[in-house]
Amino acid sequence: MENLNKINLFSKRHLGSGEADINYMLQEVGYDSMSSFIDSVVPGSILKRNAVQIGEEKTEEEVLEELKAIASKNKVFKSFIGQGHYNNFTPSVILRNVFENPGWYTSYTPYQPEISQGRLEALINFQTMVSDLTAMELSNASLLDEATAAAEAMTLAKRSSKSKSDSFFVDENSFQNTINVLKTRAEPLGIKLIFGNPTDLSSHEVFGAFLQYPGSNGKITDMSQHIKSCHDQSALAVIGSDLLALTILKPPGEMGADIVIGSSQRFGVPLGCGGPHAAFMAVSDKLKRSMPGRIVGASVDSNGDVAYRLALQTREQHIRREKATSNICTAQALLAIMASFYSIYHGKEGLIEIANKVNHLTSLLKKNLEVKGIDCLEDNFFDTLIIRSGQQTKEIHKRSLNKNINLRKIDEEHIGISLDETTSSKDIEDVIEIFTNQKIDLNLNFESSIPENLKRTSSFLDHEVFKKYRTETELVRYIRKLSDKDIALDRAMIPLGSCTMKLNATSEMIPVSWPEFSKIHPFAPKDQLQGYTELIEDMEKMLVDLTGYSKISLQPNAGSQGEYAGLLAIDAFHKKNNESHRNICLIPKSAHGTNPASAQMVGLEVIPVECDEEGNIDIDDLKQKAEIHEKNLSSLMITYPSTHGVFETNVSEVCDVIHSKGAFVYIDGANFNAMVGICYPGSFGGDVSHLNLHKTFCIPHGGGGPGIGPIGVVEKLSDFVPSHHDENSPAVGPVSGTDWGSASILPISWMYMKMMGSEGLTQATQLAILNTNYIANRLKDHYKILYKGSNDLVAHECIIDVRPLKETAEVEVEDIAKRLIDYGFHAPTMSWPVAGTLMIEPTESESLSEIDRFCDAMISIRNEIKDIEDGKVSNQDNLLKNSPHCAKTLIQQEWDHPYTRAEAALPVKGSHEYKYWPPIGRVDNVYGDRNLICSCPSMEDYE
Amino acid sequence: MENLNKINLFSKRHLGSGEADINYMLQEVGYDSMSSFIDSVVPGSILKRNAVQIGEEKTEEEVLEELKAIASKNKVFKSFIGQGHYNNFTPSVILRNVFENPGWYTSYTPYQPEISQGRLEALINFQTMVSDLTAMELSNASLLDEATAAAEAMTLAKRSSKSKSDSFFVDENSFQNTINVLKTRAEPLGIKLIFGNPTDLSSHEVFGAFLQYPGSNGKITDMSQHIKSCHDQSALAVIGSDLLALTILKPPGEMGADIVIGSSQRFGVPLGCGGPHAAFMAVSDKLKRSMPGRIVGASVDSNGDVAYRLALQTREQHIRREKATSNICTAQALLAIMASFYSIYHGKEGLIEIANKVNHLTSLLKKNLEVKGIDCLEDNFFDTLIIRSGQQTKEIHKRSLNKNINLRKIDEEHIGISLDETTSSKDIEDVIEIFTNQKIDLNLNFESSIPENLKRTSSFLDHEVFKKYRTETELVRYIRKLSDKDIALDRAMIPLGSCTMKLNATSEMIPVSWPEFSKIHPFAPKDQLQGYTELIEDMEKMLVDLTGYSKISLQPNAGSQGEYAGLLAIDAFHKKNNESHRNICLIPKSAHGTNPASAQMVGLEVIPVECDEEGNIDIDDLKQKAEIHEKNLSSLMITYPSTHGVFETNVSEVCDVIHSKGAFVYIDGANFNAMVGICYPGSFGGDVSHLNLHKTFCIPHGGGGPGIGPIGVVEKLSDFVPSHHDENSPAVGPVSGTDWGSASILPISWMYMKMMGSEGLTQATQLAILNTNYIANRLKDHYKILYKGSNDLVAHECIIDVRPLKETAEVEVEDIAKRLIDYGFHAPTMSWPVAGTLMIEPTESESLSEIDRFCDAMISIRNEIKDIEDGKVSNQDNLLKNSPHCAKTLIQQEWDHPYTRAEAALPVKGSHEYKYWPPIGRVDNVYGDRNLICSCPSMEDYE
Repeated sequence: MENLNKINLFSKRHLGSGEADINYMLQEVGYDSMSSFIDSVVPGSILKRNAVQIGEEKTEEEVLEELKAIASKNKVFKSFIGQGHYNNFTPSVILRNVFENPGWYTSYTPYQPEISQGRLEALINFQTMVSDLTAMELSNASLLDEATAAAEAMTLAKRSSKSKSDSFFVDENSFQNTINVLKTRAEPLGIKLIFGNPTDLSSHEVFGAFLQYPGSNGKITDMSQHIKSCHDQSALAVIGSDLLALTILKPPGEMGADIVIGSSQRFGVPLGCGGPHAAFMAVSDKLKRSMPGRIVGASVDSNGDVAYRLALQTREQHIRREKATSNICTAQALLAIMASFYSIYHGKEGLIEIANKVNHLTSLLKKNLEVKGIDCLEDNFFDTLIIRSGQQTKEIHKRSLNKNINLRKIDEEHIGISLDETTSSKDIEDVIEIFTNQKIDLNLNFESSIPENLKRTSSFLDHEVFKKYRTETELVRYIRKLSDKDIALDRAMIPLGSCTMKLNATSEMIPVSWPEFSKIHPFAPKDQLQGYTELIEDMEKMLVDLTGYSKISLQPNAGSQGEYAGLLAIDAFHKKNNESHRNICLIPKSAHGTNPASAQMVGLEVIPVECDEEGNIDIDDLKQKAEIHEKNLSSLMITYPSTHGVFETNVSEVCDVIHSKGAFVYIDGANFNAMVGICYPGSFGGDVSHLNLHKTFCIPHGGGGPGIGPIGVVEKLSDFVPSHHDENSPAVGPVSGTDWGSASILPISWMYMKMMGSEGLTQATQLAILNTNYIANRLKDHYKILYKGSNDLVAHECIIDVRPLKETAEVEVEDIAKRLIDYGFHAPTMSWPVAGTLMIEPTESESLSEIDRFCDAMISIRNEIKDIEDGKVSNQDNLLKNSPHCAKTLIQQEWDHPYTRAEAALPVKGSHEYKYWPPIGRVDNVYGDRNLICSCPSMEDYE
Repeated sequence: MENLNKINLFSKRHLGSGEADINYMLQEVGYDSMSSFIDSVVPGSILKRNAVQIGEEKTEEEVLEELKAIASKNKVFKSFIGQGHYNNFTPSVILRNVFENPGWYTSYTPYQPEISQGRLEALINFQTMVSDLTAMELSNASLLDEATAAAEAMTLAKRSSKSKSDSFFVDENSFQNTINVLKTRAEPLGIKLIFGNPTDLSSHEVFGAFLQYPGSNGKITDMSQHIKSCHDQSALAVIGSDLLALTILKPPGEMGADIVIGSSQRFGVPLGCGGPHAAFMAVSDKLKRSMPGRIVGASVDSNGDVAYRLALQTREQHIRREKATSNICTAQALLAIMASFYSIYHGKEGLIEIANKVNHLTSLLKKNLEVKGIDCLEDNFFDTLIIRSGQQTKEIHKRSLNKNINLRKIDEEHIGISLDETTSSKDIEDVIEIFTNQKIDLNLNFESSIPENLKRTSSFLDHEVFKKYRTETELVRYIRKLSDKDIALDRAMIPLGSCTMKLNATSEMIPVSWPEFSKIHPFAPKDQLQGYTELIEDMEKMLVDLTGYSKISLQPNAGSQGEYAGLLAIDAFHKKNNESHRNICLIPKSAHGTNPASAQMVGLEVIPVECDEEGNIDIDDLKQKAEIHEKNLSSLMITYPSTHGVFETNVSEVCDVIHSKGAFVYIDGANFNAMVGICYPGSFGGDVSHLNLHKTFCIPHGGGGPGIGPIGVVEKLSDFVPSHHDENSPAVGPVSGTDWGSASILPISWMYMKMMGSEGLTQATQLAILNTNYIANRLKDHYKILYKGSNDLVAHECIIDVRPLKETAEVEVEDIAKRLIDYGFHAPTMSWPVAGTLMIEPTESESLSEIDRFCDAMISIRNEIKDIEDGKVSNQDNLLKNSPHCAKTLIQQEWDHPYTRAEAALPVKGSHEYKYWPPIGRVDNVYGDRNLICSCPSMEDYE
């Protein structure tokens, strides 16, 4: 009977293959059962079955109902708390067509520009919006949150300033959480923070200063003089600011700022209990090549048409490794895209209207309080007041909570209040009544709270794109046109090694839009967050179970933040044990580039460890280096299964070596998709790991963010996970701006785990590994498979080596990647971890038919290469070199290539009905980096 | 201050143009203000400004909040009422990617097959599913609801049967609402209904019989013998059935049925308080050319590839007019498409699992009741029981309501219960407890409730399409691939005259997914429907205000149903006044084809009235005919503004002529978009009108349904609107299966009216008329504008006459329509109301830039025609004759046309990035009708 309630289980929707196809693939790779196959892949020493206690799998409807019950324990109050987090209206048209549209949320980081023109254009719109509003020359395509953006600005100032000082000035009127993160980040780098009033700036010697405008208390002041004080001593001035305020306030760029950071959350992104939302960073021209994060730039394609792509990638951490000064890799693409569409929807006039309304209501509130005898601290403000509530303070908070309103707690005698787009005059009425028990007077006169010299006079958002799409009809079509240019998971397999592009199921996504999750302020009283608390505790429990660790922290909002937090924990442990000299971090050469970058940020010295020819850690070299650095050894960072896609058999031995020296093993969880339910890093030797929820646990990649990178730690490190609150605890400081960096999307992973259950999760891992081995098996006669583990098997990803083809046919890895676009595929990961290779990861969600379609394409391309090798076609003018073939190219009347148009565009029979048309030809990267244009090109450029 | 709360009004998102563009267009058409322009378009005798009292316009957020408050007055109980309406799980992947995706819901009826291949394929999947499950040769692409489908089957039987009888047998074990509608529909046609047990069939002389399987009481019986009784007397057998049941029951086709009808609602379409959802009709081969409704068929395109299109359109009412025997024109495309994806998602195995679960739980429930001493009426059933509840009946209903459960009320001693996909064993437990106050015994044994001879043995859904897309990844991609083939409003303007393709705003659509609206059973106790009641009363009030009528009925679920209901009301009035001889209905020749078809169905004799050269009603002919038929005159049906897109100046005079004869004026509200807020049919002479909410009031067209066609009537007709309940009232019987035919989508129109407010609605009308006149003005030097009203102005749509081009260039209307596809547009309405013309309606939502893009395309095409006229290119091989140019054609290596590929595919400079690619070339309609294939072609056909 019970089975009757379980007839439509989620796992069969998530897993690409059922029994028959699994058996077929097993047979192809030479095994007669999944268990014997897995026994041959995973070292027996670490393989542990049936250890997961997450429970039985459930149907989508059951789990949605369960989560709804949890969600309803959150109390959705109106919050006037502010501090970088503001309620707003997400326009329905953006909610449904971007945030809830798989064409946007399932896309990958736009490393392959030809199939990413839509999201690249949306991101360059974001950059244009930010640089216009801040009046800075250049913006990046978003950062993780406002607090970490401030920290990135601090380190950018450190490396760019000519000052020899190691002090950084921090405006005491900054958001508390920004201050908290600055403290965390400054300490390991030896940066001294000086807190004070900006008027004292000239009396300190600093390499830079962080100033907040408007300030945490709402005050707006002209920063020009303070910025000059910085420049006078060759220090850089960083301004933390607010995009909505800047529509009517004089922008920092016009005051001389070097760097401006802030959050774009209030541009249509829900509060979501603190995240995810997109921070921004804008810089002056001279800093453009040092800016952290991703930057979208305009270039040209093979036809000379405008084409977008990620610019200046040589700055990135995966390339700079030990020389990196930031470990940022993810951005918050999806949220930045939402904010950019919000600014397009409202345009300059609409944004100014909103800002004026907010400012007007704030002034009206203040005036009403004043006539009733209640003062505020400041006269010049945008949206925030600090009210002298005196002895009434407690009572007022009580009255306000009774009205389901949250005010900001300051101290026993002051209350803060920040208004936002959603505030109505009715709300002001309520607040007046809470404070005074009297009625509002709507007709009071008041002076502008913005002094003349701080009023914005310059224009902004004057580009066509911010004027053309103000009706819903026009915006819907623009959104669709952009997404139609891109390949996301809703069109085809995205076989990206290491990135685990698996199904982001709709039932997982639906709860994210629920107001019980989306409309919660991160600093609301904890008793309003019971739903979140329960969800998070349950997730932590499940992740403890899956990892074998003792404790989980869900604070880090990206994998890189997780690495950083994990290493901080290790470092804090050593310090607590009076071993602060332990500062050596061993990292194999095959590691993700973020590993050494994160170690750098924690102040560790990175010592690379050799790998053998098979890509495995050279155990002898490891032992030797552990020996040499014995006394100062802090940690080893490894990835498991290895970045080469192999279950290294000696992993336990490797861990033992490190432990024997009193050091810790950090296991990078990027490849956790290959371990869930079958092996447990916390059990086989790891001390800390971060997990990428956006890889293994179905958070969509969103075109390059959001991500979540929680960490798991063993018992002895469990006191050292990051926290905003416990000043006196051994906990390390916070690594992101709020307690749970990306709280509002945690339901996605929770839904996934609950729907799959213990068995489903284990099946997923096994199938992901089987799919990969099936691909390796199909391709092995056509390409060289670079690394294999025991029994000639790979793990959940495999690397094919195309370097020999350079010799034989002048074909480079990029040529194959671009040619795959003609077949309708996103390329595998290019030249990582080894230059000249392609790393393929199918995940468990792809069906056998899609996997075969991909293998067929790869084999067909190999045959096209053969024609070059055989001299049948030129090695410069051929199907690969000219790929991808866009429509403009294909319909040219002249055609002098040694192949037909049909061979170029429709290499697979019967594919014409479903053809994906790349909007542009191959992008010229060099041109773009030489001629850096990072805001919307003018219309003439299009013509 | 108040303005500050109103800064982001919806009207500026809905209206395509703001002040500047409006002024520009006014100037172009020669006016200096909107009011002087409208004065010149609308006859002064009927123009009335500022008469609408709907209130001030509001923001999207305000109105959503207001509606949420109303919605929450509905009580969402678990309903076991059944009777053709069952709760079910809409798979999240279908909910989000079909039901909530503008690519699907904003598309139009697939009359232009080349830009509709996606929805046509989805609909042929629906037809395949229905004909497989019913085991009939052919299915149509859906009908309005189960009850009207039964009525359509009755009339199909009438016209197809060789029997001379005018009696129709109706199984007394049919759903009550089906019986109600059959009564309404039979009476005016002179059909006598005989109710009884099918075993008595042979004792009656009938032309057909309606039998229900499973019956309303749940009973399943072998219908073979009853069907034979029909055939023995040349009568046709119609079976009302249930698709889910048919996955495990012997299908009616295998019992010899001629026609099978039913609802596909339980295949993933929410209850929605009764609609909309898709009914189906399947017939045996010999009836295929008489079947009402739309049928999708397979044909070939210009390359010989498989291509879908609407088949056998010559049967349709707009072509057959007075000879029509059905007035059906809309289908329920969107809901049929959802049902088809549901069947693809579950496949044969999944559907059988669901059906077995339902049947198993029903049996378990019965057995548990029995062991506790409570009997059920029948032993053979699928999902429905009638329980002998005896004296406990009242008490049981009370207990059940206390548990938020609705059982079906039968009488004082019986209770009905129908289970569904969502029923769990926990629910059964609850029901047992309600009936017996005891615990369930899950381990009872019971025999199958389905006798061997009624078990299904034949296979179904064996086509590939029902096997390939069972994982979410595969289904998402299939859904996307199909929608990518189509042009809907989210891609481009759809300038369809008469069809009013305006913005369907997201905020209007969002409430439709709310459970408070979607999870309500139509027969739930009225006190659970307070939200719906309030919403509907408010809508009625607004529509009374806008139309000038006294009463509104929201029952008709399509415009055609509205016409029928309106004429029924007129007829009922005459009968009540002992003037049943009044049976003459005057209809101008320019009328919509549904008008005469509806009149036929009410038993009226249609007398056509002449039109003058300008397309206006010939008032002399009208007077003459009114005189001739004076005594028997029932009514006049006119459309206003006329179907030629003109405000006829003498409309009041026309109405007076009719009224003076004691007859009524029916004003077809198809063109109500040109009247809202500026003139009022109920005030200037109309007695009844239907409105098309899917035209004027933003219900999306959904690829050919849902529609809603409420009627407004003057005071003296207000007692005669249709009803299911008032047996003794003068009300006419119901015209659709539930009280409010499409209740769940009424929130769309309500949102629209509330957000726009009185002023916004009036602005919309004015702008729609201005946009049209701007187009007429831009095109007038290039094409002949066929009809104009006073001052040389048109109303909200204009007709261009392309017949002269046939003479000069061999160009037909179809050639221009197909060539527009190359420019990325859906064609205007073709050859209606006049053959050889195109009727253009831009609506108020299109921006000036999109309107100009369309005009540019039309002018550019005219220049292409000029090249033919000038002899520069052949009149057989040219850009128009070969259009649309699909990719397969364009990339052929051979090219011997007198134009380039680029001229064919990218006629507009800079358009390559956004190019819409038609998936196929021009469809061969004749081939398709000759070789009728109406289910999924086999895979070989694709190759």
